[in-house]
Amino acid sequence: MSLLVMKYGGSSVGDAKRIKRVARRIADRRQEGHQCVVVVSAMGDTTDDLIELSKEIAEATPSAREMDMLLSTGEQVSVALLSMALHALGEQAVSLTGWQAGIRTEANHGKARIIDIQADRIMNALNQGRIVIIAGFQGVTENGEITTLGRGGSDTTAVALAAAIRADLCEIYTDVDGVYSTDPRIVKQARKLKEISYDEMLEMAHLGAAVLHPRAVECAKQNKVKLVVRSSFTNHEGTQVKEETDMEQGIVVRGIAFDKPIAHVSLLDMPTNPSRLAAVFNSLANDDIDVDLIVQGGIRNGKADLSFTVSLADLEKAKSVLYHIQADVGFKNLETHSDLVKVSIVGAGNVSSPGLAATMFHTIAETGVSIYTVSTSEIKISCVIEGRRLHEVIRSLHTVFGLDEHEYVFVTDVSNE
Amino acid sequence: MSLLVMKYGGSSVGDAKRIKRVARRIADRRQEGHQCVVVVSAMGDTTDDLIELSKEIAEATPSAREMDMLLSTGEQVSVALLSMALHALGEQAVSLTGWQAGIRTEANHGKARIIDIQADRIMNALNQGRIVIIAGFQGVTENGEITTLGRGGSDTTAVALAAAIRADLCEIYTDVDGVYSTDPRIVKQARKLKEISYDEMLEMAHLGAAVLHPRAVECAKQNKVKLVVRSSFTNHEGTQVKEETDMEQGIVVRGIAFDKPIAHVSLLDMPTNPSRLAAVFNSLANDDIDVDLIVQGGIRNGKADLSFTVSLADLEKAKSVLYHIQADVGFKNLETHSDLVKVSIVGAGNVSSPGLAATMFHTIAETGVSIYTVSTSEIKISCVIEGRRLHEVIRSLHTVFGLDEHEYVFVTDVSNE
Repeated sequence: MSLLVMKYGGSSVGDAKRIKRVARRIADRRQEGHQCVVVVSAMGDTTDDLIELSKEIAEATPSAREMDMLLSTGEQVSVALLSMALHALGEQAVSLTGWQAGIRTEANHGKARIIDIQADRIMNALNQGRIVIIAGFQGVTENGEITTLGRGGSDTTAVALAAAIRADLCEIYTDVDGVYSTDPRIVKQARKLKEISYDEMLEMAHLGAAVLHPRAVECAKQNKVKLVVRSSFTNHEGTQVKEETDMEQGIVVRGIAFDKPIAHVSLLDMPTNPSRLAAVFNSLANDDIDVDLIVQGGIRNGKADLSFTVSLADLEKAKSVLYHIQADVGFKNLETHSDLVKVSIVGAGNVSSPGLAATMFHTIAETGVSIYTVSTSEIKISCVIEGRRLHEVIRSLHTVFGLDEHEYVFVTDVSNE
Repeated sequence: MSLLVMKYGGSSVGDAKRIKRVARRIADRRQEGHQCVVVVSAMGDTTDDLIELSKEIAEATPSAREMDMLLSTGEQVSVALLSMALHALGEQAVSLTGWQAGIRTEANHGKARIIDIQADRIMNALNQGRIVIIAGFQGVTENGEITTLGRGGSDTTAVALAAAIRADLCEIYTDVDGVYSTDPRIVKQARKLKEISYDEMLEMAHLGAAVLHPRAVECAKQNKVKLVVRSSFTNHEGTQVKEETDMEQGIVVRGIAFDKPIAHVSLLDMPTNPSRLAAVFNSLANDDIDVDLIVQGGIRNGKADLSFTVSLADLEKAKSVLYHIQADVGFKNLETHSDLVKVSIVGAGNVSSPGLAATMFHTIAETGVSIYTVSTSEIKISCVIEGRRLHEVIRSLHTVFGLDEHEYVFVTDVSNE
């Protein structure tokens, strides 16, 4: 008998039929003898509908506190219905809101972080033999204010709960059946990974693999919560995310990740005064523009070229901010390139070794695509490249780094599906 | 400056436009300098929609506890949106759920009664100059379970809050503009009453005047909460409900009330043994059949006729229950009359005096309608009559008891509308 935390997202509980199917799956787990805590998101489009309603009421951005009051009803509806569906199957179940489950958060409405979980009520219900259904994405401050956790909130609720109650496993049910070596829509030979380490998952998540929110991965890593990502709709084995993978040795590249379209911005001939550098990034931050991959070229006569990337969606805003401060900051010209993309190879096994980087650059060059910027970390190498041949680049990298090969140890389960 | 509790029902906040209109009205009251606590129901059909959803999930009656989890979201949505609408008007407002407002109830899910209200949080918000918007119809048990109050719950929340915070006035906003001397759809000359006593209102409410739930009137009477019933849509003066009306003297009949169709049931020649009487009413109660106007006729040879009324909707169920116990209870025949109705005259000024009763019987007889049963209390006389000429009877009584007359002191404000 294990103590399991399961998380079902909004599309898994999108209507009455799906809720009943999820209930059936949970009941099966219970019948296997496990103790079950289930975290649920709001049904399908509920959150969007509530946001729409708030826009009809007030044109200005509504109070974050009232928005949390409004949106937290979505998960409360799901948990009540899921609990009813379990009762209909003859199971003992009880639903809890965030505050009832003891999920204490900061008062930062709309993006609160979990401070701690006072799990007595959950443990009592489990000890009475009940399946405990908990509203994800929400908590309560010490002053009794309802909060929501923002992006990735339900995943994070599940992981934090698993840590608080020392669950044996946290199962994240989603609409894909695991973590893949790259996007299977682009690379047919993409493989579902049997295992991935927290750090690798974190990079994959940050780099656009939307299957699990980086915040939840971070929380799992910190608390050593063993995670499985698997499908809400099939019984396929999913991908385990854990501290160290069993076959770390010998595997270098775990997957190929890529991100949304980005733009490359260069400030040419800028005086290399640290306060001027700070002025550039403060101005961008003030306008909520996220900056990535900052590179400063060689200094000539006290000046250098400064370049960085922003998301393509932010480019026009960034240009307007930068022209506004050009006189103060003193760069000569502003150059931008749009239609770029960041492609990365991710792997815990010393992926950033010079040999691998060389292989990556060479492979990209062979497709005739230019590389704008390179950045590396312990477990990844990212290249900003032209977006026009992205799929070709990803396929080549997937092949070159051995991810296509059938004998690859961590993908042997794929052949059964 | 007064401390006001205002209650808006579901139809008053049925959509974004109506919520904004209600916000405007509340803001006006605030601008007049009053401190405002507002109780709101769920938007229009929300509760019905949620019940429908629960039926899709489970055919059997769902757990009352989970039903409360589900339904309580309806008011939480309304209060958040109304608070946003007030912010958009530049007002300071804060919404509270039942548990946040300290509304403590019994654990009787679906029809919990309020035990007490710990109003610190409400008072703090008022003292900070805020309009406090509270979810009606819901509360929390001492174990942190969400409850709903059942029928009349939002009215009762408003009255109980007014008592707890010692409000100067509790305003019930509804889709009619006050309490009328009888149903204006039937009697054109029906007048809006300027004032009515708690007891009169209670009888009117019990007898079918749907404007205010008897439970809320009872709560107001017990706690001496001054109530006003008025329209959500107009600025017309409403009807005051209070301990004693100013012009009690001289007024005898305040209004004519009538109820849903009922049926008259007679058990003929039944042994007048108390345990048999008890068996009859226990059996009916076990099947949730409410019984009204019980009359036992004269005893002949240890037997008598027992008759009572039930709602027409319950008649078939009642017959089946009674036939089932006929052998045990020992009555000879069962006689029933359907298509009946109860019409009542209500007034605190000794309305049950024999002269008034005689006038009432005479007036009904003149329309050619039979009277089946009569019952009286301190402030009402009720007659069960044939339903076929109900409107004619009501109009005659309205005229005979002087309710049509224009010089009638408590209706002088009607002419301005």
